[in-house]
This record gives sequence, structure tokens and C-alpha cells, in this order.
Amino acid sequence: MMMRKDEDFTGWFDRVILEAQIVDDRYPVKGFTVYMGWGYRIARAIARILEERLEEEGHQPVQFPVVIPEDAFMREAEHIEGFAASVFWITHAGDTRLDRRLLLRPTSETAIYPLFKLWIRSHADLPLRIHQTCNVYRYETKATRPLYRGREFLWNEAHTAHRDYEDAERQVRKGVEIYRYVYDRLGLSYLILRRPDFDKFAGADYSVAFDTWNPDGKVNQIGTVHQLGENFAKAFELEYEDEYGRRRLASTTCYGMGIGRVIAAVIAHHGDDHGLVLPPAVAPIQVIIIPIPFKGYEESVKRYAREVEAALKEGGIRVAVDDDDRLRPGEKYYKWEMYGVPLRAEVGPSEVNERTVTLVRRDTFERSKATLEELKERVEDLLERLYQNLKDRSWNRLEKEVVWAENLDELKAQIEERRIVKVNWCGDPHCAFRIKDEVAGEVRGTPWDGGEEAKGPCIICGGEARYVAIVARTF
Amino acid sequence: MMMRKDEDFTGWFDRVILEAQIVDDRYPVKGFTVYMGWGYRIARAIARILEERLEEEGHQPVQFPVVIPEDAFMREAEHIEGFAASVFWITHAGDTRLDRRLLLRPTSETAIYPLFKLWIRSHADLPLRIHQTCNVYRYETKATRPLYRGREFLWNEAHTAHRDYEDAERQVRKGVEIYRYVYDRLGLSYLILRRPDFDKFAGADYSVAFDTWNPDGKVNQIGTVHQLGENFAKAFELEYEDEYGRRRLASTTCYGMGIGRVIAAVIAHHGDDHGLVLPPAVAPIQVIIIPIPFKGYEESVKRYAREVEAALKEGGIRVAVDDDDRLRPGEKYYKWEMYGVPLRAEVGPSEVNERTVTLVRRDTFERSKATLEELKERVEDLLERLYQNLKDRSWNRLEKEVVWAENLDELKAQIEERRIVKVNWCGDPHCAFRIKDEVAGEVRGTPWDGGEEAKGPCIICGGEARYVAIVARTF
Repeated sequence: MMMRKDEDFTGWFDRVILEAQIVDDRYPVKGFTVYMGWGYRIARAIARILEERLEEEGHQPVQFPVVIPEDAFMREAEHIEGFAASVFWITHAGDTRLDRRLLLRPTSETAIYPLFKLWIRSHADLPLRIHQTCNVYRYETKATRPLYRGREFLWNEAHTAHRDYEDAERQVRKGVEIYRYVYDRLGLSYLILRRPDFDKFAGADYSVAFDTWNPDGKVNQIGTVHQLGENFAKAFELEYEDEYGRRRLASTTCYGMGIGRVIAAVIAHHGDDHGLVLPPAVAPIQVIIIPIPFKGYEESVKRYAREVEAALKEGGIRVAVDDDDRLRPGEKYYKWEMYGVPLRAEVGPSEVNERTVTLVRRDTFERSKATLEELKERVEDLLERLYQNLKDRSWNRLEKEVVWAENLDELKAQIEERRIVKVNWCGDPHCAFRIKDEVAGEVRGTPWDGGEEAKGPCIICGGEARYVAIVARTF
Repeated sequence: MMMRKDEDFTGWFDRVILEAQIVDDRYPVKGFTVYMGWGYRIARAIARILEERLEEEGHQPVQFPVVIPEDAFMREAEHIEGFAASVFWITHAGDTRLDRRLLLRPTSETAIYPLFKLWIRSHADLPLRIHQTCNVYRYETKATRPLYRGREFLWNEAHTAHRDYEDAERQVRKGVEIYRYVYDRLGLSYLILRRPDFDKFAGADYSVAFDTWNPDGKVNQIGTVHQLGENFAKAFELEYEDEYGRRRLASTTCYGMGIGRVIAAVIAHHGDDHGLVLPPAVAPIQVIIIPIPFKGYEESVKRYAREVEAALKEGGIRVAVDDDDRLRPGEKYYKWEMYGVPLRAEVGPSEVNERTVTLVRRDTFERSKATLEELKERVEDLLERLYQNLKDRSWNRLEKEVVWAENLDELKAQIEERRIVKVNWCGDPHCAFRIKDEVAGEVRGTPWDGGEEAKGPCIICGGEARYVAIVARTF
């Protein structure tokens, strides 16, 4: 059965995630999804790239409990307001009613700050930077969707504390840089937006978010970085003694990356009608070797396939031989294309005789031959080209998706076309709400790192535009 | 403040886990502990050794949800009986009462089998082997203790399904081998015991456990492997079609390793009065370089320290330089001894001039000099010797701890002495219960892989002994 990604993205996506063993959405609790073998390997690889980068930048890996006591959760007013409606409550253990209710973390600020309070004594303890990869829990009332929106989702969250707002500000920029590095390694394109105040993280001073395009026209938020100022520090009494012996309040930041949504973006950006196409950095297998048996050559082909495997393994390439005798080569091609393995290496009698390998790129299906001697370099080169191609395609698509609208009618029309639309905006939230009422999208924010200047009247009120706002559909 | 591990193990342990940043037990919910940076790095390293080995042996990494619906949990009668009293119940989300209660997994059989039922169609789908590293939740009513017993604990669990009991039996042996491999890499000694039937996993046919010694005389269960036979397969209708088109019931196994308890064993077995001593396989830093500044040589010492670091890094050694100017060398020695880093490399003016490094072993404090040229080999050699020494010491201690008792009085006396005691046992559970009533220990099981034969009358009833039983204190 042929799949048409462009004609039926949702059908394509649902089929790919199951056939490529990414996730199984048949778990018998709504909004809770099972990561299968191939999907979890990709998730783990993404998490590790991020974790390594965070640790190089001074974040300690930690693990906090999944449960938060009600009283700790209730300490920051805006935070409660933002999350209280969507937390899961534990009320009993065995037959016993608990003295105080516990909630499953929707995010970990209120779990972490009581310990930060113990860990931070003096300015020498700052900055304090930690991160954890874990699941968080939100009772979403909107439609759940595997990888995009679940009631349990895998993410990495970093939390930092600083001597003052300025140092926290530097950390926000560092957080943005770290996330940018990860998405770049995956060949993903993105917009970096400062969220409007009415859409910031509950308890934040302001929020920066990475949004990316999705084939269905609904932007996918793949990461957020928050300046928390002194809001949480006040609520949790995060004080330290400065160089002059004065008690001062810390400033904090946090940033989170939803691993599921990043996988969704990888699938959505790079996949094609044959299935996944994985960026080499996170492909569990980078080269799959398919022996092409031929009467009389079965053994020599198998032996040679192992030789090719050993040569690549030695070169640090993640490689495997598919020697499952139950499948014909064509069936194996189909399978590994679905799984998105970047390169296929075919070895048959002619390759054995020539001591060569036929290499087929997953993105372009271009075929080329390499001798065993030059194999490692050729594979590295092809993986790099494939990566560059995926990245270029993703950025080109984003560029195509983002268009200007000069007035409300144009905006409506472009949102109907499922574009991501730039408009002039005065900055008044009422104009943003009006957009939400009038069109099937909403103001996602304003470009974080500058870019174009607002150049005309606000698209709604006609007042002077202070910002270029990004308007898009959301899921 | 000097610490005496042998005189006050509990005091020593509590201080080491906090000072070496393993875990912080001050989280405001009883039985829930925070993994700090150094501890989590060790936990992760242990988990990765196990995960790699499991995956080499055909287990796919997966992640199942933390919540289990009540009806799935209630399907296997013995399993309910074993766990129902200790599960945490989620009853509400926001202000909404849930239609059906969800529980936090105490172990994942009942989460996994509904999906196994979907994944297993024919004999070609078997064996099916998965594993996951995750936290599980048990409302322990006994005293909780960081790393040893928490209400949330980090573990790895593997689950397998097979065509018949015999194949499941082979998997049980494979599971035991995999766990043995991991403990060996950590230099831990252990007893492999078949648990008495009254102490097997709830729903299992039989259970095999790894128990190890602890300085306080209470054995530490660091892993278990369970033959589940058809018990769960029946409850969850895990049927497959065999080669002849017949519907048959699968057999299943599972095995779990508590990462916290393994860390506790690493700390307890290898640590000394100076703090942790880490086996090189899981030491986040294997060699810590301490520059010894000397007036006029500050810069050349620092530069040389970086050169030494680069040489070791290139050789695949996990290495760091401690160039914190706020601490004197002696304070750094103290700190990294507490953290258990296997080797210290001191570089001062004389090392700069000679182009050598002074190496100090953490286990024996032996000092030796190596030239920069031979450094990598010498470090590898010292790490290997240190590992062997830790392993030998752990096994020697176990050998010393395990003693025979010929009668109940001897058993009582040896348990008073906090030994692990071998006795002759007829196999009747009533005799085992009698032991538990009479002495401060209990029957932990019978040696899994043979060993000594029972050689006399049962220590309780005087009937013919069929087993050598291991009796010990438990925590």
C-alpha cells in the first residue's frame, strides 16, 4: 500500500509510527503511549545529544521524584493557576488515604526548589545548573495525539539559579544556543519566538519558544526557555549570601525540550512516501547491509557482508547486516526504508568479486559504488551529504511556509492555506485575541533574535506596529 | 571529621551519600529521594552497562507508561495479592474524578502484557524480549532507607515471551548470566539463590535472586530473575499460532535490577574511611588531575596539567583537571577521595621538569611515577589492578561472611554475629517459618547453581535435609 505523505499527512504519520516501531498508541489509557524499540532508540539518541551538550555547559544530571506534595506545588500563585486544572492527583496508597495529596509533576520547578533552597547558601554555590530527562504528566483536555500531545510525555528539563537577573538573562541565551545546537544536529528548521505575555509559562517573566512547521499547517512547539526572574525564588525563599555578607534573592531560569515532539518533527520534516528518513546523528543504524544471495554464492556473499560490517564498525559507523533468511532482498529494502536508515549497502556476487559495495542513499535513492578500501570515507561523506540535504530541505520548506499578510483578509486566506504568517502588531493583547477570534490561528510570538522590523500599522487596530508577530495554526 | 565505616556503617553511609553527592534524602515526601549529579552519573553508567548487554542479547529498549489501569492490574490473582496493598492510586485529574482509577506501576507486567497480546501473533514473533529503565512505585510500610528501600526506585526491568516453558527456562539462565556480567564489571560479590516458594515474586513459578553482603549484616537483594511459566500468559491471553496452525499459550519471564541497591552495594563493598571507591567501569571520572602550584611555576604547571589531560582523553580515559583556585591541593585530595575517583594524578614543578606524572591509587594509596609517554598504559594497568583488588576484597569478604551452622543455637549465635549462615533444611516451609520466629534472620533461599550438597538432618525438624538453605538478616 503506497503512502502519500503530502496528501494525507495524518494517515501517513499514524502508519509510519507503528510500522517503523516508533510508538504504539494502543495502550489502554487515553493519552499514554508506548515507545517501541526503534522509537526509543531514537528518543535516547536525541536525549543524549542534548544531555552531553548540557553537561559540557555545566549542568549536573539529576533525578527528582515524580511526585510533588500539594503544599510545595501551591507556593507560586501564577504557576498554580496555569497547571492546577491539569494535574493528576494521588490520594491513596493500598487502602490507606494519604495524609496529604501528591501530584504527578507537570514540570518540576516546585519539586526542585525546596532542594535548591538547601543547596544554595552563598554566592559560591551559584550559578547552580541541573537537568533531568524524565516523563511529565498533564491531563490534557484537548485531543491527544501520539508524540505531539500526550498526558505523559518524555522531556528534558533544565533548571538554573543565578546571583542576579542579568546572569539569568545570559543563561536564557545559553539555553537557546544549546537547543539550537540540538535541532541543528537533527537537520530541523525552526523559528525562535518570544511568546506573548498571555502565553508565557505559568510563573515566568517571559518565555522563548522554538516553533517549527508541520505538514498539516499546525506549528509544533519543540522547546521552550523561560526567564523566571525572582518569581519562584521569592515563593521558595531562594536566598544566598553575597560577597559582602548580604542576603540576596536568586534569579532562576528553566528550559524544556519535549523529546516526543522533536521526534515528531524529525519524522514530519524528513520522512517521505517510503517512510522515515533519519538524520545520521540519531539513526540507531546508519548503514544496513543487505546480502544479495545468488545460487552458489550464498556463503561468500554472507562472509563478505560480515567483512564489510567489520570495516564500518571499526570506522565508528553504526552498522548491521540483515541476514534474516525469511525475507527477500526487496522486502528488506522496504523494511529499512520504512525505518529510515540513512544508507543501504548492497553486497552480491559482483561486489564480492570486485571487493566493492553498492551504496544507496535513503533521501535521494542515488546509487554509487565504493571499494572496500575507501568505504569508510565514502560512507562518512554520504552521511554528511544526506544530513546537509535533509537540513536544506527543512529550512527551504520553512522559508516557503512563512509568508506576510498585510491585512486581516490576507491573513485569513493564508491561514486557510495553512501557512505561517507574519503580520504587523501593535503589541496589545486585545489585538492578538481578536486575531484568534477571526482566524483559525493565533499569535505565537515575535522573533526572538530580531530580524525584520515592523513596517506599518497594526493589522487589527491600525495603530503603530511595534512588532512583527507570527500567526499560525496550533494543534 | 574522621569516618569509621566498620564502627558505624549507617552513619558512614549517610554521610558519604550526601558528601559525595550521590542522593539527597531531604525531599519533602517520605521514601522519595533525589539523585544528585555524581550519584546520577554512576546510576546512568550502571544502567548503560546493563542496557548494552541486554540489547546485545536481543532485548529491545522500550518505555511503557507509568500508570496502569485498575482492570489490567487485577487480572493475575497472585500478583494482585502480592502488590495491591502497596500501590499508589491516582483518583483525580484537576477537579475531575477519573472514571476508573489508575495506579503507579509497582512493576510492569500488567502494563506490558496487554501490548504483548497485540504484538504476538505467531511463533515467528517469539521470543519477544524487551527492557526498560524506569522508576517503579511501592508504598513500603517498612522503614525506608536511601538507595536500599524507597517508595520510588530506579530499576531496569526485562520482560520476555517464549514458545514454551523450556525456552523460557533458557531465558531465565540467560538473565542470570547477564546480571552476573554486570555485577562482575562492578567488582561485586553475590550469592545466587532460588527463593523459597513463600518468598517468590507474586505470580511467578519460581524466582532467582542475587543477594549480597552488607556491612550491617543485612543482605542486600540486588537483582531477581523470574520464571513466570504460563501464569501471566493465561491471565492476559498471550496466545500464538505455532508452525502447525495450532493456538498455543506463551510462557514468560521477567527480571529486574534495582539500580539504587546496586549503587548501595558498590558504596558498601568498596568504600573506606575516606569515602567512596568507584570501580573504573562506572566512575564518572577515572583520573583526576591535581595541579600542585609552586611560586613561579603556576602557569607551567597548569599548562602541563592540560597536556596530561589531553593525552589521557585521547587514550579514551575519563579524565578531568581540578583547577579550582579556591581550594588547596590537600582539600582537593580530600574531595576526590570522598567521590571515589580511582586514580589521582599529581602534577607539580618536578613532574613538569621530568615530564612525568605522580599517580596515586584510591584503593591502596600507593604512589608511582609514570612518564608522559607511558602514561596511558600505566593508567590502564592501574585501573585494572584497582578493579581486581576491589573485586577480590569483595569476594573475600563474602567468603568470610558465609558460615555453617549445625544446629539452631549455632544459627542464632551466627545471626547475632550478623553472618550469612548455611544450614541443612528439609524444604518444608514450616521449618523456614520456625527459623524466622526463632532467629533475627530468615531463609533467603537455596543456592541456584548447585554447590554443596545438604549433609545431615534438617536444622529444625531433624528430617532428611534436601537443601542447603541460606539464612540471613534482611532490612
